[in-house]
Amino acid sequence: MAENEGPIRFGIMGCAEIARKVSRAILLSPNAALVAVASRTIDKAKQFALGNKLPESVKLYGSYGELLDDPLVDAVYMPLPTTLHSKWAVMAAQKGKHLLLEKPTALDVKVLDEMLQSCETNGVQFMDGSMWYHHPRTAKMKDLLSNSHVFGPLKAIHSSSSYHPPPDFLENNVRVKAELDGLGALGDAGWYCIGAILWSMNRKLPTTVTALPTAVRNSAGVILSCSASMIWDEDETVATFFCSFLAHETMSLAVCASNGTLNVDDLIIPYEETAAGFSYTSGAKFVDLHIGWNVKPQHVQVETKLPQEALMIQEFSRLVKDVKYHGGRPDTSWAETSRSTQLVLDAVKNSIDDGYKAVKM
Amino acid sequence: MAENEGPIRFGIMGCAEIARKVSRAILLSPNAALVAVASRTIDKAKQFALGNKLPESVKLYGSYGELLDDPLVDAVYMPLPTTLHSKWAVMAAQKGKHLLLEKPTALDVKVLDEMLQSCETNGVQFMDGSMWYHHPRTAKMKDLLSNSHVFGPLKAIHSSSSYHPPPDFLENNVRVKAELDGLGALGDAGWYCIGAILWSMNRKLPTTVTALPTAVRNSAGVILSCSASMIWDEDETVATFFCSFLAHETMSLAVCASNGTLNVDDLIIPYEETAAGFSYTSGAKFVDLHIGWNVKPQHVQVETKLPQEALMIQEFSRLVKDVKYHGGRPDTSWAETSRSTQLVLDAVKNSIDDGYKAVKM
Repeated sequence: MAENEGPIRFGIMGCAEIARKVSRAILLSPNAALVAVASRTIDKAKQFALGNKLPESVKLYGSYGELLDDPLVDAVYMPLPTTLHSKWAVMAAQKGKHLLLEKPTALDVKVLDEMLQSCETNGVQFMDGSMWYHHPRTAKMKDLLSNSHVFGPLKAIHSSSSYHPPPDFLENNVRVKAELDGLGALGDAGWYCIGAILWSMNRKLPTTVTALPTAVRNSAGVILSCSASMIWDEDETVATFFCSFLAHETMSLAVCASNGTLNVDDLIIPYEETAAGFSYTSGAKFVDLHIGWNVKPQHVQVETKLPQEALMIQEFSRLVKDVKYHGGRPDTSWAETSRSTQLVLDAVKNSIDDGYKAVKM
Repeated sequence: MAENEGPIRFGIMGCAEIARKVSRAILLSPNAALVAVASRTIDKAKQFALGNKLPESVKLYGSYGELLDDPLVDAVYMPLPTTLHSKWAVMAAQKGKHLLLEKPTALDVKVLDEMLQSCETNGVQFMDGSMWYHHPRTAKMKDLLSNSHVFGPLKAIHSSSSYHPPPDFLENNVRVKAELDGLGALGDAGWYCIGAILWSMNRKLPTTVTALPTAVRNSAGVILSCSASMIWDEDETVATFFCSFLAHETMSLAVCASNGTLNVDDLIIPYEETAAGFSYTSGAKFVDLHIGWNVKPQHVQVETKLPQEALMIQEFSRLVKDVKYHGGRPDTSWAETSRSTQLVLDAVKNSIDDGYKAVKM
């Protein structure tokens, strides 16, 4: 049976910069094939194919609809501006295409739910394009965090995701256009902070989300920088994050638990492709006279043969294969991962819009 | 002239655990001498001297007043519970003793101001016992942070200071007794976070301080764990911190500026005595396809011949010598360092007590 299974055939809808990375990931993934690329014009699709040296076998379309009508396409990767997700994601699901959707998934959870409902109704797999979940480092960190002797209950989490593009970006890039990616830095960079914090808490939603009174917006009102806190009452756990288009490159997660501390500084995009590290300390105490520590942080390096984005494609394709070849149901855990992130993102946005009031979840 | 200058002669008032470390620091410092130790009973003073192998020349007193009456004592190191600072610090200043006061300096800035006023009136030097300011690593970090090409304006700062003592501590230690160290974890651990954040901002006070709605208190109402945010409106800078007696050992400072990022994980007590490190990144960008970074964090190691607490004693003694031998005025910059920290600490405390409301500075 397995030898008759071909690779999952991907169509890319939209030639965003990130699609360059993901097209390469599809080509690297052993259970996936890139069969089509669509843009709003055929010229743009051709330019993308040439610029990224895609195989000649890849079909090029001058409209998204044509790609969705191609029966040879099993799954679409959709890096369109957030505002367009809803229309095209629902249509993709209706055409029976499995959906790998770039983040942020939607402008709010209501819109996301429409897409997820459409995926469920049509029996297609959903996943958002957060790559870092798929790096083996992430699993290794989760193993350690789950070991109560090493860590125990989490007490404080801090995450930061920022980069500092040129001034032109802050007025004109798709990521700061109210009509395209209206969530700005919160959707683009904050998505990762929220995701990482929820990942640390095993996707348990916080009790209260409160934006800190320091959001910066551009002339169109789109968020360029913001911070927020998340509280889990029952666990007495607090998380804070900072996301920004106005600060130096950060991608950090710091977890302080009862018995241990974990730090990673390149969570979202590792410094290099073949291996990624993190450090942790457990059971640290001061030596006599408090003139030093009994242990220093341990650095853990996790190697990977495939880059994390190819591992994402591989995992997505594995799930799609289960549906396509084995009569399986789509795995909804990735939808839940996206949905919990979107819920908290919405709460942060609402808190900012409502004068930084606390939002109960 | 210089050869006639003897070392600054210290008396230690109170045999707290931390006094063990500082007595060693006085003995290590080339311009200081330990001449007396006082406790509430002579037996306790003897026990301290024996336990720490102090020289036989050190005079032992069974009351604080006797030590303050000793004309051979130039300066006192005072690690008494916070509630007792006011009475004894004012008395020490009145007796002309220079004052190295353990942190937190006071229960609030009003009390601190009485002490500072007394020091000023009596022409004695004031400094609080925060040791990390005196490590050469701190100066090295400040050099880098001050270089606008490397860092530029600060955008986000996060600091964490925590440790996890046994349950008995949380009910019975002096640090959680309302009548002794009523500021609990905020005073003991939060003092460092606030100090480190203000140090990063060159002591500029924030516009707004807001505690996050997650303070944990013991049965006496003393804070065991809390978090807060600080905002500088004009600079669009945000800082957050976490301080706790309920979480694993942390002593971290993460600074994210416009062009660079700095991280230190053992700020308050370095992992080892002879050298301490930090890491920083500047000008980081993603490489093509966003599959890695153009630079990795640089680790900087700063060696020191004397531990930071001895450098603190040395610096304090240098300032006292200037007063004692050269007719200089006390240096008030250390009082300002303590005062700005106390002001923000008070704001956090007020925010917690007032239902986590924002406190304007």
